Amino acid sequence: MESNHNHWQYLFAPDSVAVVGASNTPGSWGYGIMWHLLTSAKRKIYPVNPTVSEVLGIPAYDTVVNIPGSVDLAVIAVSAPQVPAVMQQCAQKGVKAAVIVSGGFAETGGQGSKLETELVKVAKEGGIRFIGPNSMGHADTSSQLCTLAWIGEIAPGPVALLSQSGNMGHRIIHNGMSSGFGFSKFISTGNEADLHLEDYLEYLAQDKNTRVITAYIEGLREGRRFFQLAKETTVNKPIIVIKAGGTKESARAVRSHTATLAGSDAVYAAAFRQAGVIRVEDDDELCDLVAALLYQPLPRTSRIGILTIGGGLGVVAAEAGEREGLEVAKLTSSTIEKLDAYLPPRWSHGNPVDMAGLSMAENPVIFSSLWALMADENVDAILLQAPVGVSIKRLSGIFNSEEIRAFRGKEESNLSLLRQRVTEYGKPVFMVKPAVEFVSDPEVSSLFHREGIPVYSSPHRAARVLNHLVWYRRYLDTIGAELVQID
Amino acid sequence: MESNHNHWQYLFAPDSVAVVGASNTPGSWGYGIMWHLLTSAKRKIYPVNPTVSEVLGIPAYDTVVNIPGSVDLAVIAVSAPQVPAVMQQCAQKGVKAAVIVSGGFAETGGQGSKLETELVKVAKEGGIRFIGPNSMGHADTSSQLCTLAWIGEIAPGPVALLSQSGNMGHRIIHNGMSSGFGFSKFISTGNEADLHLEDYLEYLAQDKNTRVITAYIEGLREGRRFFQLAKETTVNKPIIVIKAGGTKESARAVRSHTATLAGSDAVYAAAFRQAGVIRVEDDDELCDLVAALLYQPLPRTSRIGILTIGGGLGVVAAEAGEREGLEVAKLTSSTIEKLDAYLPPRWSHGNPVDMAGLSMAENPVIFSSLWALMADENVDAILLQAPVGVSIKRLSGIFNSEEIRAFRGKEESNLSLLRQRVTEYGKPVFMVKPAVEFVSDPEVSSLFHREGIPVYSSPHRAARVLNHLVWYRRYLDTIGAELVQID
Repeated sequence: MESNHNHWQYLFAPDSVAVVGASNTPGSWGYGIMWHLLTSAKRKIYPVNPTVSEVLGIPAYDTVVNIPGSVDLAVIAVSAPQVPAVMQQCAQKGVKAAVIVSGGFAETGGQGSKLETELVKVAKEGGIRFIGPNSMGHADTSSQLCTLAWIGEIAPGPVALLSQSGNMGHRIIHNGMSSGFGFSKFISTGNEADLHLEDYLEYLAQDKNTRVITAYIEGLREGRRFFQLAKETTVNKPIIVIKAGGTKESARAVRSHTATLAGSDAVYAAAFRQAGVIRVEDDDELCDLVAALLYQPLPRTSRIGILTIGGGLGVVAAEAGEREGLEVAKLTSSTIEKLDAYLPPRWSHGNPVDMAGLSMAENPVIFSSLWALMADENVDAILLQAPVGVSIKRLSGIFNSEEIRAFRGKEESNLSLLRQRVTEYGKPVFMVKPAVEFVSDPEVSSLFHREGIPVYSSPHRAARVLNHLVWYRRYLDTIGAELVQID
Repeated sequence: MESNHNHWQYLFAPDSVAVVGASNTPGSWGYGIMWHLLTSAKRKIYPVNPTVSEVLGIPAYDTVVNIPGSVDLAVIAVSAPQVPAVMQQCAQKGVKAAVIVSGGFAETGGQGSKLETELVKVAKEGGIRFIGPNSMGHADTSSQLCTLAWIGEIAPGPVALLSQSGNMGHRIIHNGMSSGFGFSKFISTGNEADLHLEDYLEYLAQDKNTRVITAYIEGLREGRRFFQLAKETTVNKPIIVIKAGGTKESARAVRSHTATLAGSDAVYAAAFRQAGVIRVEDDDELCDLVAALLYQPLPRTSRIGILTIGGGLGVVAAEAGEREGLEVAKLTSSTIEKLDAYLPPRWSHGNPVDMAGLSMAENPVIFSSLWALMADENVDAILLQAPVGVSIKRLSGIFNSEEIRAFRGKEESNLSLLRQRVTEYGKPVFMVKPAVEFVSDPEVSSLFHREGIPVYSSPHRAARVLNHLVWYRRYLDTIGAELVQID
């Protein structure tokens, strides 16, 4: 790897961007990229297309070379055979960095591989570092740059995403935003002909806007370097990955997708564990976990307390917890005494704490019980599965509008207090929806997001996240294992 | 079990209902039950409460005995110690059937168990069959009866639900409705002091409004009978169950919840398999599966075709399928030829069929490719992970309103055609959202629901459902195994 620190500045916060292949045809890549650049732009944008005089109202140039000002970044979206010549013109123009969204290179084999070799040579001679080819583009929410064609607006936030699939990246971004968090940077890495996933990882490890790094990986080009970097990084920044291609046909699909080898799944699994990298199965689990890692402490042990509105919900939550390797805590007698004072005599008198059908009007009792559970020295994490965050529609059948305001006001201050106590005790608390209509109104879910309390649709999903947190805390307590080498 | 066929009529389609414990206090059980009965009522409702003159505007009676007309069904929501006396009065009045929502019976042990024994004796002497105690109520959408306090409106449909937890029942009902299907009957079985889950199962097996039976089970009181009934029923009506309490602490929680023994999880698992009962892990999986069973055929084999918009999505779908035990089909050369004609040269030339970044304007190509896959003799089920059902918000960034209408109209007719071809080929087709914003607008999701095409948020969830369908088809082909006895 050449040492060239400036290219990051040009890639993520360019003053000027040329779009080669810019287009006025709605639905085309060249149109989508222009549209995204213009809707967030605070910089010079130069469309390049020899067949039109302007794109989306901006004067177009026939070639990069004829752009009047300097160009920091070129986004290239022309057919593959044209790309090396375009890169040559970029070099001539003094363009600093590029993103190549065109496909049809090494991933198609044969002629495509030759094109890719030629492209790399031209770029290297011109001193241009690039993302792709076969990338979907990239984004930086702090500099408000987005070279993607289809993604829509990306909410800013502390999570970075590296993806060896544009579509999986798109999927994770939107899933994350509906889980209530935003992104610092997103890079669809494409074929990684020049910059590798490992380069981006090294950069993100130092990036002040990034607190959690996520990745969708099909195959690593520099496995040894990845795991060394990961091991150094996970000490203070969690890394969460989806590693795909672990079965026969999916490994075959990986070869035709990004021209990489998926490698042995078991070797990857061991290496991730030894580097403190948390591996998840899919984007739902990834987003569930990020929502917890961002704002909740890591639990001291796997002993959970379950506060639930119904016996069956408690049974299912206890089973989900145990199946994920968590332990259902034995409550202290002092906690039992406190709960006896708050709850009706029919409560379960143990953990899961089944409040046995409280009405919604009894909301304060829920929080008193929660404070008692949090104070229990045998409990290190809590699943709260109670009627908090009921939708306005449901409340309207029970209360008038003034009562609803008062009810919501009380919930709001209790959730604030909850946030404080989570920090004070160092014990994570997860909201588990008793049913789909809880925490479904945007005003309620934003309340939970504001207080950093993750909301899960099922106890299984919550338990899986808790188990990852327990594992990560143990890892951090005992690092020092040898790294498996998979280069 | 006594033979008494009429009680079903009185339980599910009574002409008159008394609510003992009816209340004017918003948020209370007695209020919620009255509210639900009145909002759907086509029958006489008699609130019973000695301390008020009317409830929700309806004249109240001090006791059931003093109600002027006859009473088919009594809903009892008073404190446990009062219930036997209320049941005595019901017998005196000639009430035909009852639902007891009061808790505090066998599930609390000791005094509660004695009360329950007394209650059963009084009811038996009075010839009254009853649901509960410790039930959350029940509902029949065809007779528009709902004795539940909290559930909101239940959409009518062909799915019956038996639940040994009111809250899990509530959860499944709402999850099902957001998955696009409705319910025929719901019974929260409570402690099953009189009517057992097995009685309801026997009834539902014959119920013309019920095409699929679902159940949340903690423990069976008549295991041998259950599995015999199930075996007879699953030949023409699928039965899907969540069986909870399979771990140490969850089994303990079951005892304090419904006073049953959870039993050996492995024995249950084997018995379910031998009776053709499909066991699922949670309510998400249950609803995913029901959505497919209602309107999609059972696949001949486990060979799937994957049609995807992105390479990474295809890799993840192939892996999810293989991990669930499905097989990624090898396409015939005739299919490859057809796809070569429709798709850009960069397509994957195999299964998963990666269309490699089509734009949304190329929508017709998606359906042509789908028809080609469906016609392939090596493919018996299809996961469609393509840009169909894009939200209006996303389309608005690309098309004007007239173009959007035309675009949606074409999708609509293609989805109609899809429904026809699913029936014609006998091959299930599942929509798998490429990202969270697909099939998210209510107008789009109702379009999919109308055509009976299930929509899944991830390939993992879709693959799990397909695997159940494959298993069920194999079961139906080979029934005749001995029943495991767990009485």
